Amino acid sequence: MPYLRNTWYLAAWSDEVRGDALLARTIAEQPLVLFRDADGGVRVLHDRCPHRFAPLSAGQLEPGLLRCAYHGLGFGPDGACVANPHGQIPKAARVRAFPAVDRHEAVWVWLGEPDQADPSRIPDLGFIDRAAPGARVKGHLETHAHYQLMVDNIMDLTHADYLHRDTLGGGINTRASSQVEEADGGVVIRWEAKADTLPPVMNAQLPHPGEAGDFLNEVHWSAPGVMRQRVLFGPAGRLDDLGFDSLTAHVMTPAGPAHTHYFFCHTSDGLTRDPSMAEGIRAVLLQAFKGEDSPMLERQQAAIGDADFWSLKPVLLSIDGGAALARRRLDRMISQERGSAAQGEAQLG
Amino acid sequence: MPYLRNTWYLAAWSDEVRGDALLARTIAEQPLVLFRDADGGVRVLHDRCPHRFAPLSAGQLEPGLLRCAYHGLGFGPDGACVANPHGQIPKAARVRAFPAVDRHEAVWVWLGEPDQADPSRIPDLGFIDRAAPGARVKGHLETHAHYQLMVDNIMDLTHADYLHRDTLGGGINTRASSQVEEADGGVVIRWEAKADTLPPVMNAQLPHPGEAGDFLNEVHWSAPGVMRQRVLFGPAGRLDDLGFDSLTAHVMTPAGPAHTHYFFCHTSDGLTRDPSMAEGIRAVLLQAFKGEDSPMLERQQAAIGDADFWSLKPVLLSIDGGAALARRRLDRMISQERGSAAQGEAQLG
Amino acid sequence: MPYLRNTWYLAAWSDEVRGDALLARTIAEQPLVLFRDADGGVRVLHDRCPHRFAPLSAGQLEPGLLRCAYHGLGFGPDGACVANPHGQIPKAARVRAFPAVDRHEAVWVWLGEPDQADPSRIPDLGFIDRAAPGARVKGHLETHAHYQLMVDNIMDLTHADYLHRDTLGGGINTRASSQVEEADGGVVIRWEAKADTLPPVMNAQLPHPGEAGDFLNEVHWSAPGVMRQRVLFGPAGRLDDLGFDSLTAHVMTPAGPAHTHYFFCHTSDGLTRDPSMAEGIRAVLLQAFKGEDSPMLERQQAAIGDADFWSLKPVLLSIDGGAALARRRLDRMISQERGSAAQGEAQLG
Repeated sequence: MPYLRNTWYLAAWSDEVRGDALLARTIAEQPLVLFRDADGGVRVLHDRCPHRFAPLSAGQLEPGLLRCAYHGLGFGPDGACVANPHGQIPKAARVRAFPAVDRHEAVWVWLGEPDQADPSRIPDLGFIDRAAPGARVKGHLETHAHYQLMVDNIMDLTHADYLHRDTLGGGINTRASSQVEEADGGVVIRWEAKADTLPPVMNAQLPHPGEAGDFLNEVHWSAPGVMRQRVLFGPAGRLDDLGFDSLTAHVMTPAGPAHTHYFFCHTSDGLTRDPSMAEGIRAVLLQAFKGEDSPMLERQQAAIGDADFWSLKPVLLSIDGGAALARRRLDRMISQERGSAAQGEAQLG
Repeated sequence: MPYLRNTWYLAAWSDEVRGDALLARTIAEQPLVLFRDADGGVRVLHDRCPHRFAPLSAGQLEPGLLRCAYHGLGFGPDGACVANPHGQIPKAARVRAFPAVDRHEAVWVWLGEPDQADPSRIPDLGFIDRAAPGARVKGHLETHAHYQLMVDNIMDLTHADYLHRDTLGGGINTRASSQVEEADGGVVIRWEAKADTLPPVMNAQLPHPGEAGDFLNEVHWSAPGVMRQRVLFGPAGRLDDLGFDSLTAHVMTPAGPAHTHYFFCHTSDGLTRDPSMAEGIRAVLLQAFKGEDSPMLERQQAAIGDADFWSLKPVLLSIDGGAALARRRLDRMISQERGSAAQGEAQLG
Repeated sequence: MPYLRNTWYLAAWSDEVRGDALLARTIAEQPLVLFRDADGGVRVLHDRCPHRFAPLSAGQLEPGLLRCAYHGLGFGPDGACVANPHGQIPKAARVRAFPAVDRHEAVWVWLGEPDQADPSRIPDLGFIDRAAPGARVKGHLETHAHYQLMVDNIMDLTHADYLHRDTLGGGINTRASSQVEEADGGVVIRWEAKADTLPPVMNAQLPHPGEAGDFLNEVHWSAPGVMRQRVLFGPAGRLDDLGFDSLTAHVMTPAGPAHTHYFFCHTSDGLTRDPSMAEGIRAVLLQAFKGEDSPMLERQQAAIGDADFWSLKPVLLSIDGGAALARRRLDRMISQERGSAAQGEAQLG
């Protein structure tokens, strides 16, 4: 399957890679091993020893090298073989290293041309850094569905009214006025409602549950699957002084054609003030993502199978504006990238 | 895989579809959702929302419509979208509806040309209607084998002598004289024996267990996989006054290439008089179908794999007459149907 | 996948086929049923009834015949149908019989041209016969990896230093001098070390654990996957009078493309003298084979997938000499066999 190559993929939360742990993770069908070098910097190598194709992630981290568990070859953090207990080091003994950086509490990996791997191209999730560690509700889930279906899911939050009716839904996203625009090289979709009935979990936080509320729900997408959501709600007319404001990252990283890593991180001022809310928020999010979204997405995937999404002629509704725009932009980026790659090869040929 | 399209498939027992239940079932690779409309009539739609391909069977039945669980589109019993909470109803928002009727306590679905869906073409299983509800031992099993292998299994009951030796077998089907004929647009196979040793479960019902018995075992097949079996046995020469008479439907409905729904329903006068026999009969049938037939059929299927059955050159025995005749008739019906479909397309082209 | 056809495959330990047991086993993608005839001779047939493709291994052994469980056909030990309870025996009712012999406590099967099935071509594992039955630690494991990967694993025992570090490793195989040679139509690889630190399980058997030891480790490979290993160790300079000598057969028989039967049998003089050691030896071997080798081999296989091993350009190290030579010899044998088969067909054509 074609993936965008020249892009930063969120591959793990930074704290999944610590000490001498070796984390195996497949991103866009590329098996990777993630670990930290002597300076604590994150390193990412192809998870395959070039000798007998053993997974390096089954090995051990020793000072200055990663030791293969099968025949003891050692590889430096840059992928070059630096130790061969059986003799000279063959020139070809090298595994591919991928540019990687820690940013926003996450490890980002670049699978494309290394010389284009500019960290300034990582989407801005700085709100995570600004939240106290105890005020972050973070997780990693895997779903057996195409990552674009999972982007669609977040880019059309009216689904919450039906799929998460008793927590995040209830109808307000459907009733809200919505607006889609291209911004910051991405796509923004925004739902706004005034003096309406808030979703159950928000309503319960109002000073007078049941009173009318104002509501803003905004998602900013960057290719290929990084989304930053802001939700602001409060008693009608009182957003400024009594509003509850939260930010959530939803990042969809392809593992394979119908297999996606979903990374989420939720923060809010309220959670900063009262970290004891974290457990309740985690429960709501897991109920929504794992209990309701994932099964639906996996059933959608089963219905679509190997078919191209557009070939099935989905009926488009007004609510699909954000998702469709994001899909078209990503599809264009992938075909442009493949076009220039083909052109580059043709010029070399 | 090619299936007969212009035929009635038994898709469910009628009581599997009741109240506001939504039953998901795949027939001949077509995912279906079965439910009842306001009048209690059975309705069958493609189990896939045309918007985002969510399974409609994950949704909810509301008055007059089936509501998709994902974004709330509502579809009437005829498959037309009748509710879009997000705006106007797009013309293309429609799911395919399939003709369906309740007959003989079962739901029959027509996957082919709707204008040919004549309920009078449903095979006659009226004996089910005539039995009291308590005098029916009914079930639905799924087996991972091709439905024609499962038809073969019933069309050659000599297998009972070997595979169900201690219950339905013992040798009498092998020793019996058998006869195959085409009848009522189908195939009939009949085994008859006089003053012979009856199968264990029948012998136990004789006035004097161990005495010689007379035996008639007859199966009537209709395409594609509907079989009606009559078993009549009793003390030798006393079938008329001391015979036990039973009828059993064995219906094999393809789910996919190597996946079959098996519906069975057993009735008898004895069971009508004494419904407490039902549990014992159910145990014998499940032991035979689930404990003995299914594992054998799945191992046959594993041996055959994707190969065409005839390409493996099965050795034909005298006992294969009924099964081979049914296979040939069905194969001919399928190729005729595909031939006329191709011809129809050519005339249009 | 191409397999060597004209060769003896170890299909089972002889005591797996006893009495009226029917053993189903797939060798080189060929489903087989193994059993014993009236004289106790081992017989091997295609595990598929020619009538309806039921597995004969689901049947029953009766005097002089194997009875199919489905419709009662009976096959003699040579595969000819000798009993048809339903009428005359059709000429075509025959299953393929494969030459098979008991030798070295194992059943060997020949899948190729029957007239070439000369038992003298079975590799010599006579040491098994010479060991007392109580002095054999024998087993059968299945691993989901290509059999050539599993041959590689034994042909390069330096892996023990890393993968079995706490039992059979520790570094001595890596430090030892090694030598590869072609011998007896096969390949021999030998590791020798003097006055070195022995592997943990050997060190523990020294008169003075921790003292320096001498070490010889030798593997003789015959195509396609029969290996005979000798390990000799003892206090330095005292191999002759205080050495521990053992022989182990490691036989890799392909089941399918990524599925291998692994048969092992370990014997030693020490075990002959003290059969109570058997349990401890079995535990060490199972820890190594099942706990450490198998998972590694299955992960290698997953990394290789369907690719040709050489197409992935494995980096060759000095330790690969034995494995690479064995692979090349086997690949050549297979292509020669296929070449002459193609030529034979061309001459007939």
